[in-house]
Amino acid sequence: MEFAVHIATPKLDGVILHGPFHEPVDGTLCVSGHHLILSSRKEHVQELWLLHQSVDIVEKRPNGTNSNYQNGGTLILKCKDLRILQLDIGSTEEFLNVYASIERLSNLDSPLSLYPFFYRPMYNIIEDGHTLFSLEMEFAKLLASDDWRISTINKDYSVCPTYSANLLVPKAIDDETILAAANFRDGGRFPVLSYRHENGAVLLRSSQPLIINNRRCRADEKILNHFLGINKKGYLIETRSPNMVAACKAKGGGTEPDEHYPQWRRIYKNLDRIANCKGLLLDSFQKFMDACNDTNCTPDKWISRVDSSNWLTLIQNTLNAACFVAQCLDKEGASILVHGSHGMDSTLLVTSIAQVILNPDCRTVRGLQALIAREWLQGGYPFQTRHGKFCYSNMRNKNQQPTFLLFLDCVQQLHYQFPCSFEFTTQMLIILFEHSYFSQFGTFLGNCDADREKMEIARKTTSLWSYLNRPDILTSLLNPVYEPNKCAIWPSVAAVSLNIWGELYHRWIIDQSHQKKAMNRIHTLVQNDKKMRSKVIKLRNELLDLHRKYSQLNEELDDTEIQNVGNQA
Amino acid sequence: MEFAVHIATPKLDGVILHGPFHEPVDGTLCVSGHHLILSSRKEHVQELWLLHQSVDIVEKRPNGTNSNYQNGGTLILKCKDLRILQLDIGSTEEFLNVYASIERLSNLDSPLSLYPFFYRPMYNIIEDGHTLFSLEMEFAKLLASDDWRISTINKDYSVCPTYSANLLVPKAIDDETILAAANFRDGGRFPVLSYRHENGAVLLRSSQPLIINNRRCRADEKILNHFLGINKKGYLIETRSPNMVAACKAKGGGTEPDEHYPQWRRIYKNLDRIANCKGLLLDSFQKFMDACNDTNCTPDKWISRVDSSNWLTLIQNTLNAACFVAQCLDKEGASILVHGSHGMDSTLLVTSIAQVILNPDCRTVRGLQALIAREWLQGGYPFQTRHGKFCYSNMRNKNQQPTFLLFLDCVQQLHYQFPCSFEFTTQMLIILFEHSYFSQFGTFLGNCDADREKMEIARKTTSLWSYLNRPDILTSLLNPVYEPNKCAIWPSVAAVSLNIWGELYHRWIIDQSHQKKAMNRIHTLVQNDKKMRSKVIKLRNELLDLHRKYSQLNEELDDTEIQNVGNQA
Repeated sequence: MEFAVHIATPKLDGVILHGPFHEPVDGTLCVSGHHLILSSRKEHVQELWLLHQSVDIVEKRPNGTNSNYQNGGTLILKCKDLRILQLDIGSTEEFLNVYASIERLSNLDSPLSLYPFFYRPMYNIIEDGHTLFSLEMEFAKLLASDDWRISTINKDYSVCPTYSANLLVPKAIDDETILAAANFRDGGRFPVLSYRHENGAVLLRSSQPLIINNRRCRADEKILNHFLGINKKGYLIETRSPNMVAACKAKGGGTEPDEHYPQWRRIYKNLDRIANCKGLLLDSFQKFMDACNDTNCTPDKWISRVDSSNWLTLIQNTLNAACFVAQCLDKEGASILVHGSHGMDSTLLVTSIAQVILNPDCRTVRGLQALIAREWLQGGYPFQTRHGKFCYSNMRNKNQQPTFLLFLDCVQQLHYQFPCSFEFTTQMLIILFEHSYFSQFGTFLGNCDADREKMEIARKTTSLWSYLNRPDILTSLLNPVYEPNKCAIWPSVAAVSLNIWGELYHRWIIDQSHQKKAMNRIHTLVQNDKKMRSKVIKLRNELLDLHRKYSQLNEELDDTEIQNVGNQA
Repeated sequence: MEFAVHIATPKLDGVILHGPFHEPVDGTLCVSGHHLILSSRKEHVQELWLLHQSVDIVEKRPNGTNSNYQNGGTLILKCKDLRILQLDIGSTEEFLNVYASIERLSNLDSPLSLYPFFYRPMYNIIEDGHTLFSLEMEFAKLLASDDWRISTINKDYSVCPTYSANLLVPKAIDDETILAAANFRDGGRFPVLSYRHENGAVLLRSSQPLIINNRRCRADEKILNHFLGINKKGYLIETRSPNMVAACKAKGGGTEPDEHYPQWRRIYKNLDRIANCKGLLLDSFQKFMDACNDTNCTPDKWISRVDSSNWLTLIQNTLNAACFVAQCLDKEGASILVHGSHGMDSTLLVTSIAQVILNPDCRTVRGLQALIAREWLQGGYPFQTRHGKFCYSNMRNKNQQPTFLLFLDCVQQLHYQFPCSFEFTTQMLIILFEHSYFSQFGTFLGNCDADREKMEIARKTTSLWSYLNRPDILTSLLNPVYEPNKCAIWPSVAAVSLNIWGELYHRWIIDQSHQKKAMNRIHTLVQNDKKMRSKVIKLRNELLDLHRKYSQLNEELDDTEIQNVGNQA
């Protein structure tokens, strides 16, 4: 891949950068294959290093009249981290060159030309994040029992292209049954284990069944009923509304026919806007961000725009569905299958939030990473497709949607309501959000394990987890008020309880340095506390040591005196 | 005052209390002169002690049909601290008795029969809050200069019934001028000093002039121009809109005629809803609380209800006006007079918020107390009238309005944006809110100093400040991340920056125990830090001490050994 062809103006003096919370900066712009760099060469003025990949859309506003402009113009860079930057360029030729470069380099087709394949970390990797969350490690306890096994039936990704090569399945279910069930489900996504609760109830997820000519699939029924045992009842959580299910039926999809799943009770959860993947979710978020970015709004207009964006309602509906699932598992000990259409958006959202509610492990740093690795990455959430463009772009397609951001926002809501129950700060969630859209790391590249294997992600890129788990990075993301809490955390889902995640959505609009300072002060207190404790221990030991020496010396002195007296005598 | 006549049922078993965040409690209800007490006599179940004065409205819902009920009923107590409680009473007679008692005792006419006149603190008062914030103390620096004096012209409250007996006035202004100016202003509230900025610019407040037959008042002009000096310009901040000013003119009020105040530039700030005092502000807050209390709302409905309440818009408008005032003072060094109609609601709101923005002292515990003492209490804000009823009551009149709560909410907004710049936590603001509506302390009784003098508040009641400044109480209200900040704090007034004060408004609706736990953990860290520091110092001293002893002993040993050798030799 040769980037130079896209870079007509690699270096340009006298470019003026306008960005949030700083005075305009006059500097030299450098366009490299992966970065846009603006350097003023002044002390105390930070250089701007922007990954081309982070630009959602670049808009050009020439100076002067449109038909015959000669005086350069302004580039507006709207970034996937929600920041909006502006570059003033004096010459029209250079202005157009730089525009073309950013436009081209921020829209490269092949993932293989992205920065993660070129980035080399400047530190030693202590623990390779690419191999950190293997199936064997994550489900070691279950595999140690006699009930589960690892099937390699999907080793060439032919059974289900979006699942992993290795799959955890019950020992009682043979590979033929799996193959048959996979044929019955959309994209081969047959029911697999998401989470086994401490009471033994299991949370399963899949895609919709393909109901052609009302056919049934005994293999699918067998798998599901295996989890229930005799006479027990389970819940089928249908993330779509009956109307949407009917519409999907017309296209060969649908939901499990009641008569063949008598032990399962169906509950509809209206997450159509998420399950549908027709751009509605991204539209919601776009409206929401437009309201946030309009700082001249009056409170009533701002409120009504936030309202009409529906973003908060989507959060409430998601939390509601996840709470329902968590309650069935925890209170009723009932097993549960969750699915919508493709088993990728609303499905993963509900199963993963239910786990954060129930499972204290998911509220630790490593546990959250493992949850994302298991449910979202190995679960085949198509990051490359979904995160191709974000809320500012006008080149969006319907397959792009911020389901993963909705997941992070829901975790943030739980964090807001239970601030002591999470090992990490919400800053960690913001980092995850950013790296899922653009990154120097390979973790979120591709759409599924098959893609990542083909691209040799593990060999050719660095893992985000390797970076995040470095002690100095990790320490800064630890929640100073964390107190491990073994219980489920049941959130309030009332509208008044919902928190607009200003720390993320308003960070380029409202100066949050004072809030950050408060957080830093608390961090410093925790660090001091640790230092002081070790200092106290050290001083105590020194004191003990000296006491001992003192006593010895005292004895010595006594002896010498006795001897002395003896001598004198 | 005999309360017994209002208490037909002083004690009643088997009453069931329903309240926020606890199971129903079956207990004995006691009705005393000032309290409603419910005790279950069970361990771990807290007794309810409710001041009658804290009940905003009591509603009775008899069991059975309305005309012929025999089975008691339910009393709904809606309290001024925003809590809603429910008492189930089995017998109809007792049910009606208790209802009548609460109804009567929560609506006593005379302030002299209120609890503060009966309450005796169980602790020694170290520093009497009643005398803590005298004019002489507060303006000691100004009085030390040659420019200011204390006038006693109002010693019998005849010049201005709502101002204090002692008044700070410029030395250059004699008492006759003051008298004349007072005659020209609504309620005698002639221009007085609110705050003198470090650059010498002054913030003044008054009521509207009484413009009858276009008369002018040279005394008033003299006072105002005195603060400007020659050739300087000042701002008249009119908190009302031109329309409202016109309406007030028709009733003998109005605003300063431009031709007689040529050095002053008038700026209109549309705080009509606050300045008007026709119940609009309380209506806004009522709508806002109704939305908060309706937990079954969907986010869109909740948002549109919060929106239509206008509460956030009122906060934004107030912050806007206060920021404008603060900017004129700080950036332009211009002096400012603020007034609306009576100089009591919008006026005090704007002058006091401007001070919190500019003056770091106001962001300390003592400084906030002093600000409230100066601007609100000595400034004659009619707490007794304004706080007679609150948002739940249906017996409200137009003189009741929560301007002081709006002030506290604005301070909260500043605290939210500058969390390190305040010595106190927002819990302090909640305590101030509560005690301004009902209290065991006399601080907020009466409408002005004249009232409080007549009632002998200082002699007969305890001051809230005496209580708050006790070390154990104070410590719990200190902000663990406080870092004194000598600068002005310029808030963002964009709608996205506004924070719904859930800590106060949602505290009986949403369980906030987890947020409190986080705060407590930070408090503990600060306490530990202090303890550890003194422990380290103690250990170091011990170590030094022992080192010294050890050296001495070593020397002694050397001496003894030399002597020994000498002896042997």
